[in-house]
Amino acid sequence: METTLIKSLYRETKKFTDKNIQISGWIRTIRDSKSFGFIELNDGSFFKNIQIVFDDTLENFKQISKLAISSSLSVEGVLVLTPDAKQPFELRANKIVLEGNSASDYPLQKKRHTLEYLRTIAHLRPRSNTFSAVFRVRSVAAYAVHKFFQERNFVYANTPIITGSDCEGAGEMFKVTAMDLNNIPKKDDGTVDFSKDFFGKETNLTVSGQLSAETMALAFRNVYTFGPTFRAEDSNTARHAAEFWMIEPEMAFAELKDYMDVAEDLVKYIIHYVLENAPEEMSFFNSFIDKTLFDRLDNVANSSFGRITYTEAVDILKKSGQKFQYPVEWGIDLQTEHERYLTEKVFNKPIFVTDYPKKIKAFYMRENEDGKTVAAADLLVPGVGEIVGGSQREERYDVLERRIEELGLNKKDYWWYLELRKYGETKHSGFGLGFERILMYMTGMSNIRDVIPFPRTTGSAEF
Amino acid sequence: METTLIKSLYRETKKFTDKNIQISGWIRTIRDSKSFGFIELNDGSFFKNIQIVFDDTLENFKQISKLAISSSLSVEGVLVLTPDAKQPFELRANKIVLEGNSASDYPLQKKRHTLEYLRTIAHLRPRSNTFSAVFRVRSVAAYAVHKFFQERNFVYANTPIITGSDCEGAGEMFKVTAMDLNNIPKKDDGTVDFSKDFFGKETNLTVSGQLSAETMALAFRNVYTFGPTFRAEDSNTARHAAEFWMIEPEMAFAELKDYMDVAEDLVKYIIHYVLENAPEEMSFFNSFIDKTLFDRLDNVANSSFGRITYTEAVDILKKSGQKFQYPVEWGIDLQTEHERYLTEKVFNKPIFVTDYPKKIKAFYMRENEDGKTVAAADLLVPGVGEIVGGSQREERYDVLERRIEELGLNKKDYWWYLELRKYGETKHSGFGLGFERILMYMTGMSNIRDVIPFPRTTGSAEF
Repeated sequence: METTLIKSLYRETKKFTDKNIQISGWIRTIRDSKSFGFIELNDGSFFKNIQIVFDDTLENFKQISKLAISSSLSVEGVLVLTPDAKQPFELRANKIVLEGNSASDYPLQKKRHTLEYLRTIAHLRPRSNTFSAVFRVRSVAAYAVHKFFQERNFVYANTPIITGSDCEGAGEMFKVTAMDLNNIPKKDDGTVDFSKDFFGKETNLTVSGQLSAETMALAFRNVYTFGPTFRAEDSNTARHAAEFWMIEPEMAFAELKDYMDVAEDLVKYIIHYVLENAPEEMSFFNSFIDKTLFDRLDNVANSSFGRITYTEAVDILKKSGQKFQYPVEWGIDLQTEHERYLTEKVFNKPIFVTDYPKKIKAFYMRENEDGKTVAAADLLVPGVGEIVGGSQREERYDVLERRIEELGLNKKDYWWYLELRKYGETKHSGFGLGFERILMYMTGMSNIRDVIPFPRTTGSAEF
Repeated sequence: METTLIKSLYRETKKFTDKNIQISGWIRTIRDSKSFGFIELNDGSFFKNIQIVFDDTLENFKQISKLAISSSLSVEGVLVLTPDAKQPFELRANKIVLEGNSASDYPLQKKRHTLEYLRTIAHLRPRSNTFSAVFRVRSVAAYAVHKFFQERNFVYANTPIITGSDCEGAGEMFKVTAMDLNNIPKKDDGTVDFSKDFFGKETNLTVSGQLSAETMALAFRNVYTFGPTFRAEDSNTARHAAEFWMIEPEMAFAELKDYMDVAEDLVKYIIHYVLENAPEEMSFFNSFIDKTLFDRLDNVANSSFGRITYTEAVDILKKSGQKFQYPVEWGIDLQTEHERYLTEKVFNKPIFVTDYPKKIKAFYMRENEDGKTVAAADLLVPGVGEIVGGSQREERYDVLERRIEELGLNKKDYWWYLELRKYGETKHSGFGLGFERILMYMTGMSNIRDVIPFPRTTGSAEF
C-alpha cells in the first residue's frame, strides 16, 4: 500500500475520510491502558501530528504499547473524523509495524526544555515543535526569496565563498588555507610564504558577495546572491553568528529609490508568502513565542514604508526630548536605541533612513551633490531596528578612485571593480538583507543560534 | 517614461508594436554611415539584443555614432516590426541619452575570444554571448532545483559550511582559522594550540552536508541541501574545482529504489525546466558549443533510466571483448571508461548501477544481506559518466558502529551521527548531485571553470 503523508490528510481530509490508508512516522507521545492506547505520530511532512488509536485486537499490542518516544512506525488504519474532539480526525489502526526502536533515555521527552539545552542536542532539536516550526519557516522563506527574484527576471549569482581579494572591507575575515598549520612554509624574512598555499596567495572567507554581484548586474541588469557569508568578529551576542546567509541584490540602471521599492516589496513578499505557506507554524510562534507577532507582521506587510533623510532623522531625535544613552549629533552612526525610537515611537511602521554622512559609510556608496552625504538607505523596522542596508553604488570612475585613495585603500586591489566603471559605467544600486535577521523577526526567536540548524559562533562549532 | 525590458519586447511583441517606448542597455555593436546608424543594444534582461536605428535628426547624432562598445544608453523610440529582416523588430530612435561611457580599449570586441582568455576577464565575461547564456542557465537550473523539492514538500536545510567535525571523510579539507598565521599560538609540545582559535578547536570547510542533512531528514522526512562545498585536492583538471555547489537530498522511510526514483525525476525536471525557460540560451549552446546537445538531452529527458547491479555491470564489461585501460575484475572501482562504455555502448541511455562492493564505498552506506555489497547506486549518463551518487544509509546502530570500527575511524567523532540510530532509527536514503556537473552536461561547456562565475581551482582564486 502507498504511504500517505500527514500533510495530505490535513490538506485534503475529504479524500481520505473513512478510507484505509498507510502512514509512517515517529512517536511524539504514547499512552496506553489495559486494552487500548493512543499515539501522537509525526511524519515530518507537517507541523501537526495525527492521533493513532489502537487496541488489543492487534497481535503486537503489548510490544507497541511499551514503545519509547521517537520510535518509528508504519501504521495501517481507517481515517475517521472526530468532530467532537480537539483534533479533526484520528487513525483507527488495524496494523502497526515497528520500523525502528528508540532508546528510553531519548532526550526530547514531553516536558519543556530550555532553548539553551536544545542547542546542545542540535542533531535532535528539529524534532521539537519549536525547531520544527523554525526550520520549516526558514525553508519556506528561502523559497520565497528565490521565487520573488526569479519571477522578476533577476539572475541568481553564485558569488565565491573563498575570496582572494582583500577589498570587501566589511569586517574581520576567516583565513582559508590548505597549509599544514604545524609546519607553515616561511619566506626568508620569516613571514608566511603564501605562494606555497593551495591558491598561491592569501585567501579568506567572503564577508559579502556584493562586489562580485556588481560585475554580474552590469551584464544581467538585475541579479541577486543568496548564500553564506562569514565574520570572524568576536562578538558573543544573540544577534551575531560567524556564519550566516545573506541576500544581496544588485540592479543596473537603478537609483536609490528603486532599491527601496524592491526591498520594500521583498520584505512584504516574504512575510505574505510565509504566512500563507506555513500557517500552522506561524500560529505556533504567535501563541507560544511572541504574542505580538501577527500584529507586528501585519503592520509591516500592510503599511507603506516611510522614507526620511538621515538629517531629518537627526533633527527628530534631537527635538524629541528623549534621553538616549548615545547623544545624537549630525555625523554619528545611529544606534539601535535611535533606530527603534524612530520606527517605534515616531513612525510606528518601517522606515527607510536615507543619505547618511559619507564618513560613516563604505567607499562604494555614491557621493551626493552636497559632498557630505552618500545615497545610502537603511530599512528600520519596529522591534528590531536595521534589517536592510543598501545604497546606490558610485559609478563615476574618478569619484570612486578618489574615495579609495581618501580611505587609504590600495587601488591595485580594486582593479577589476574600477574597470566596471571604465567599460560602460552605469548607475546601479543594491542592498543586503541578513536572512537570519528576517527569520528572527518573522518567528519571534530572539537568538540567532535558534534560527540556524548548526550555528557557528565564538567558541562554538559543534556538530 | 517607464523603462521597458527587452525581454518583454520579445515575449509580448504585440503589446509594444508601433508604440513609443523607452529602453536602456549597453551597446554590443555599433556602425554608422554619414546620416544614420545601427546599434545592437543588450539590456541584460534577455539573451538577445534589440536593433536601434538612429539618424542625424537626433541632435547628438555625432556623439552617439562615435560611442565605444559597452557604453550604456537610454533610448526612446518606436518599435517597428521588420518581417523581411533577420530580427523580428527594431527600435526607431527619436531620443538617445548617453548614460555611461566605455573606453575604446574595451576587451570584449566583436571578434571571437578563447575561453582561456575570457577567464582572465571574469568580471567582464558575463557580457559575452557564451557566458550570458551559461550564467542565466545556471540561475534557471538553480531555481528548478528549489522548485522541484519545494513542490514535493522537501525542507531546504542550510547545513554548516564551517565544520568542526572531522568525520565527513570525502576528501582533503581546507582549514578555517582566525589565528595570525605569522604567529600561531603553540602548546608546550610545539603543536598548534587550537583552543586559542576562534572556535576553540580545529575547523574546516565542509566537503558534504550529508551527515547534517540526515539529522534534518529524521525530523522533516524529506530535506535537501543546496550550497557550496569544498575540496582541497590538488587536481588540475577540467572537471574539478576547489569550490562547487552540491545538491544533497535525504529522505526518511526511503529505500535505495526510492532515491533512484527521485534522482531520475530530478534530473529530468531540471532539463525540461531549463529547455522551457531558457530556450534562446539552449539553442545557442546547441548551435555553437555542442551540436549533439539537444539529442543528448532529449535522450535523457525522455528515456526510462536503466538499473543494473554492479555485479551485472562487471559481467557485461568482462564479456564485452572491449580493451580497457583498467582491467575489469569484481571489486574494482569502475573508471570513467567503464562507465561510459556501459551507458553509451550497451544501454545508450542513463543507467543506475547498484549494490557496489562495500570495500570501495563509504562507511555510512547500508550493508546488504550478502555482507559483501552495500545498497549504493551511481547514476551514469552518456557523454559524462557518473553524475549522481547515493545510497541507502546504514540505520542499524550495531552495523554502523562495526563499520566505523572496521575502517579505523574514531567512534567519538560520530557520537551525534550514531545517536540518530539510537533514537528512532529509521531507514533512509539520500544522494548527491554536483550542480556544476549537470550544468556542464546541459550546456556542453567542457571546463568547470566556465560554469562558475569566479572559479576557485589549484593556484587560482582571482577576483
